[in-house]
Amino acid sequence: MFEITPTTRLRKSPFFNSTVKAGVKGFQPYNNMLMPTGYGDPDAEYWRLLNGVSQWDVAVERQVELKGPDAAQLAQILSPRDLTKCVPQQGKYVALCDHRGTIINDPILLKLDEDRFWFSIADSNILFWARAVAAERGLNVEVCEPDVSPMAVQGPKAEDVIASIFGDWVRELKYFWFKETEINGIPVAVARSGWSKQGGFELYLMDGSRGDELWSLVEEAGKPWGIGPGNPNTTERIESGLLSWGGDTDDFTNPFEVRMEKYVDLDVPDDVVGIQALRRIADEGPKRHQLGIVMEGEALTAAHGQLHDIMQDGEKVGDVTCGIWSRRMEKNIGFALVSRKCSAGETVSVMKNGNNVAATLVELPFY
Amino acid sequence: MFEITPTTRLRKSPFFNSTVKAGVKGFQPYNNMLMPTGYGDPDAEYWRLLNGVSQWDVAVERQVELKGPDAAQLAQILSPRDLTKCVPQQGKYVALCDHRGTIINDPILLKLDEDRFWFSIADSNILFWARAVAAERGLNVEVCEPDVSPMAVQGPKAEDVIASIFGDWVRELKYFWFKETEINGIPVAVARSGWSKQGGFELYLMDGSRGDELWSLVEEAGKPWGIGPGNPNTTERIESGLLSWGGDTDDFTNPFEVRMEKYVDLDVPDDVVGIQALRRIADEGPKRHQLGIVMEGEALTAAHGQLHDIMQDGEKVGDVTCGIWSRRMEKNIGFALVSRKCSAGETVSVMKNGNNVAATLVELPFY
Repeated sequence: MFEITPTTRLRKSPFFNSTVKAGVKGFQPYNNMLMPTGYGDPDAEYWRLLNGVSQWDVAVERQVELKGPDAAQLAQILSPRDLTKCVPQQGKYVALCDHRGTIINDPILLKLDEDRFWFSIADSNILFWARAVAAERGLNVEVCEPDVSPMAVQGPKAEDVIASIFGDWVRELKYFWFKETEINGIPVAVARSGWSKQGGFELYLMDGSRGDELWSLVEEAGKPWGIGPGNPNTTERIESGLLSWGGDTDDFTNPFEVRMEKYVDLDVPDDVVGIQALRRIADEGPKRHQLGIVMEGEALTAAHGQLHDIMQDGEKVGDVTCGIWSRRMEKNIGFALVSRKCSAGETVSVMKNGNNVAATLVELPFY
Repeated sequence: MFEITPTTRLRKSPFFNSTVKAGVKGFQPYNNMLMPTGYGDPDAEYWRLLNGVSQWDVAVERQVELKGPDAAQLAQILSPRDLTKCVPQQGKYVALCDHRGTIINDPILLKLDEDRFWFSIADSNILFWARAVAAERGLNVEVCEPDVSPMAVQGPKAEDVIASIFGDWVRELKYFWFKETEINGIPVAVARSGWSKQGGFELYLMDGSRGDELWSLVEEAGKPWGIGPGNPNTTERIESGLLSWGGDTDDFTNPFEVRMEKYVDLDVPDDVVGIQALRRIADEGPKRHQLGIVMEGEALTAAHGQLHDIMQDGEKVGDVTCGIWSRRMEKNIGFALVSRKCSAGETVSVMKNGNNVAATLVELPFY
């Protein structure tokens, strides 16, 4: 553990002061901003997400806005998923790919209007990417990063908290759908989404000067349900089988290797970036797939942090891409990106610091 | 100050263990890796760079390699600087721009061969950018991140240290030129370069498994000259007027605003990304320019960290983009990105936490 401080190159979130007040202990850089990684009580933070309601600063999920006459065309060109039926106030999970069919981000696409879209992105530079493709194709579209910063409210009691603030209409929101509204004059888009499988919402703050105000408002409203601070929870996301782009993927990972085939439509137009490569990969069959892995040995005390080789019959067959002690299973679990020759149920070994750790491949998700 | 740890998304450098052994105290994220920011004695680290020799882990300066029949064409398309006279083993400082003429990175371009180049990059994703442009233009070139990790040896005694390791030929190397060689079987490119104005070299390690070995070798060789650990030094780089891309630049900064006009050749071919915009900006005249700023008030104890408004006659005229206590001047200094209406010698005020701080604009560099 080492020290880190915000700078002009590593920006603060609009909720930064609130998270400091709430006792944040560490950060991870993400899209050149600081994302909280914990508030000092991992057990309480985990069970609060599973049984109650948790409030997260996820302003690092930056929005890349496409705006103008060709915005819809650009959104489709960048997304190998059929968007023709997507309507305003609807969101869709998409796998942005490069021309080789490699996943370069897995954002939520939010359609605000026929000529305005946001990619709510994972940790890679899609602003430059979208601008390069738009300009090279001569499209009439502006690509920018608007003043929009998501806060997540996650957990089984999140709906009650959000309904108490915005009204019962939020209970009718379908997954990934959203509505632009305001609270105390603070402009927000309320979406049913979030990087956990415990249910919840994301509030897209559309005025960065009012972050602490929105944080307090949610904190106050959530008190009857015991709300407390949290952040994207490594244990829960691994148990739930949620992908971390850039962690569980590498410079050669395609969507078929990491359980994203249902988000790829091979019949999108030929001008969609990467679609030719994806059709070829689908045809030939991908070489790797993503499974769960259960590992022996002492409890992992923090996020596993580094790749480890997976061996079978004296041969490297893949990598452990994440690992953690599961509080629910009381076992070490992780994701394995392995050769298609390997199947769930098989035993393997994991090389850690020169030692062999016995492990079993299993289906994902764990829950 | 908060905690940070390496993960699969935030990679360690090949020199990581050596820097931990040397007592590294903090890191900054940079290109999804950890860059050391200090070893606990800022005074000694500063004066060692100015008067002696300092050893830096700058593996975060990732290389984006262009390789293949169209590599030279792509290098030129991405760089608004005439590269026709660049020869193998020569490097050039370039301002990569997007189609609007905005600087998106300021790397050193190293020409390894007629069909192989590296961009040794600042903190933004040029891998995706170069791949997008190459693929959209149908160029026959592979764009990848090779296993190359620079270590810098900086300071007036750096040449003696590097010569003692590699031989006296290094004394003849011209600025930004380099040579591929090896030491104890470790493949390295030795370049006269580095992000300070105290002179020095960068060793581009070409085998990530041998980082600690190369670190020890330089540490041992440097002992007679009192070598010690350091890192890109905020105080020295501000005093020396060196640009920090992403800190001193924003999403609208063009090369003419930040003293980079000498690296832009307006007569490069029309297919160079951004050249039309740059010609237009040159023609109309840029709206801002970069000056130094000397600020009153108590000594800034660490990197200034955040943008502050610069006011003149009750109007915002620009931003302070970096600031630090200068050990040589014994004053608070920084960079000002201000309207062309403002000139060196004028007094302004800087808004800091609601207070007005008196300040004077000056020419750059300070030294």
